[in-house]
Amino acid sequence: MHNDKILLDHGSGGRASQQLVSELILSYFENPILAELDDSAILDFEGGNLAFSTDSYTVDPIFFPGGDIGELAINGTVNDLAMRGAVPKYLSVGFIMEEGLSLSDFRKILASMKQAADYAGVQIVTGDTKVVPRNAADKIFINTSGIGIIAEKVSISGKKTRPGDKVIISGTIGDHGITVLTQRESMQFDTELRSDTAALNHLVAEMIAVSEQIHTLRDPTRGGVATTLNEIARQSQVGIMLHENNLPIRDDVNAACEMLGLDPLYLANEGKLLACVAASDAEKVLAVMRRNEHGREAVIIGEVTGERPGKVFLKTGIGGTRIIDMLAGEPLPRIC
Amino acid sequence: MHNDKILLDHGSGGRASQQLVSELILSYFENPILAELDDSAILDFEGGNLAFSTDSYTVDPIFFPGGDIGELAINGTVNDLAMRGAVPKYLSVGFIMEEGLSLSDFRKILASMKQAADYAGVQIVTGDTKVVPRNAADKIFINTSGIGIIAEKVSISGKKTRPGDKVIISGTIGDHGITVLTQRESMQFDTELRSDTAALNHLVAEMIAVSEQIHTLRDPTRGGVATTLNEIARQSQVGIMLHENNLPIRDDVNAACEMLGLDPLYLANEGKLLACVAASDAEKVLAVMRRNEHGREAVIIGEVTGERPGKVFLKTGIGGTRIIDMLAGEPLPRIC
Repeated sequence: MHNDKILLDHGSGGRASQQLVSELILSYFENPILAELDDSAILDFEGGNLAFSTDSYTVDPIFFPGGDIGELAINGTVNDLAMRGAVPKYLSVGFIMEEGLSLSDFRKILASMKQAADYAGVQIVTGDTKVVPRNAADKIFINTSGIGIIAEKVSISGKKTRPGDKVIISGTIGDHGITVLTQRESMQFDTELRSDTAALNHLVAEMIAVSEQIHTLRDPTRGGVATTLNEIARQSQVGIMLHENNLPIRDDVNAACEMLGLDPLYLANEGKLLACVAASDAEKVLAVMRRNEHGREAVIIGEVTGERPGKVFLKTGIGGTRIIDMLAGEPLPRIC
Repeated sequence: MHNDKILLDHGSGGRASQQLVSELILSYFENPILAELDDSAILDFEGGNLAFSTDSYTVDPIFFPGGDIGELAINGTVNDLAMRGAVPKYLSVGFIMEEGLSLSDFRKILASMKQAADYAGVQIVTGDTKVVPRNAADKIFINTSGIGIIAEKVSISGKKTRPGDKVIISGTIGDHGITVLTQRESMQFDTELRSDTAALNHLVAEMIAVSEQIHTLRDPTRGGVATTLNEIARQSQVGIMLHENNLPIRDDVNAACEMLGLDPLYLANEGKLLACVAASDAEKVLAVMRRNEHGREAVIIGEVTGERPGKVFLKTGIGGTRIIDMLAGEPLPRIC
């Protein structure tokens, strides 16, 4: 690495690519499976159900308070696997880099990916690196795909929510989305907005250990809590009633949202989960969540009904009720 | 889809994203696993070894004679799995699209992905779609990751080539690379250069069925035959001797290479494989390859030696010998 920049040659498949992989990338992600550097990784399984997921990360800016694109790329796919009740095991990583990306930025991203993977307990076992000319991409995009293992008794999906279930959120709403948006607009706030990016697989494992009545788990990323609950309402053909007074929203997030004319219910979260749990088990699940660092502020925000299937409602602070629809229009691009 | 363009809103995670997925993407890739539209796909396995691979595709132009970026994205990952002797089963697809990409182009890409997946016998079971603003990406990038199953007796890797092995190539060299390069430079040639993009998993299955002495399989994509053989020579710590007179190169590819000052040995192939096979089985493997449409022009191009481990040599047509190194410098970006 004579130069402090990513060059087209780093994506050529030739000597410079080999060096980038063996001297830089492997130095962060080293493990026996990845080190094979063959066309695909070989994994050993005892059988059962696997979860398989993919996500591409294009967040702008690539570094933001509370995290960066690398940490996001690990946590996001770990969480997608965990939301099916799977134990995440193996990740692939695909980098698309713009010629001229600084190697020190790339190193920072690799280091936070490594740290996030270690925290989550996953191994990066296969990867790919492409470099495109200047202006053909913006700095760096990362795809991660992941494989997890699901225990036989676990069956969690967007289809399984039932009338009577309680809707739990693991913590405050909108932190990631508002952080990235205010950073991008170079807005200054007195308070410290921070992304909530976090791997939730350990939290999920603790929840599953105490209850077999967790019907649905989802992480409300793009489109936020409102869109995710709408998806669950449709998939399970149930109605969902939220209580505005119960929604946990940080004061500074609320303030920034008011200033920007945004609704926290539609902002992306990257370290939160929604759980639809049978009422009988809700308090038990809530208690175990609150003992985990990523669930300390967990709270019941609503309940599932058999009325108006496919719809989500909000009981407002002043006693009214309004429909909460999916995100539509007003796109917030490159939020994750 | 009122508009014939991809809009930022299609990547918002909200209503427009849902429509793009459910009305357009699912209409091509529909299968029960993908249709769940949960955070990850659930796959059932009986145990054993899995192959796991990922690749991002950034080829420019996205349509070229013989294929397009969609077909490439399916075949490339199918081939990476097949090169470990795996039977490819499940793919994930991650799209990163530039705002303004025409929906008709996207439909063409989806259709060729569907066709390629059907031909290869793989299912697309999970996916992700991101849209970035104009000029933050160039038209479309596609990541595919794949899972395949490896039969117990199969053990094929870049490390297993042995002195005495024959080096077989499944057909002509450089077709994909030269096609993309000449298209990009809008060069006109009298002859019909075409990409060789093809799924090789059925060919590999037929080869494995007749021989347990296939030590290494690799598809010589970026960096070409020269770079791939260098990788094998290093991983297996063997020398490789190629015979220039045996290298199958189309006349029009040779002519275009001469005009552009390029060596076909360094050009990408997207539907070819290199096999290092014990001499005792080489003719048997060759015979079965030649009966497959993707191996009709298969030929032995060299042999493996115990001398000069890690190096690749070419015996030239006039009797000399020169070292064939990895691709270095002269990057050819966005070739796949």
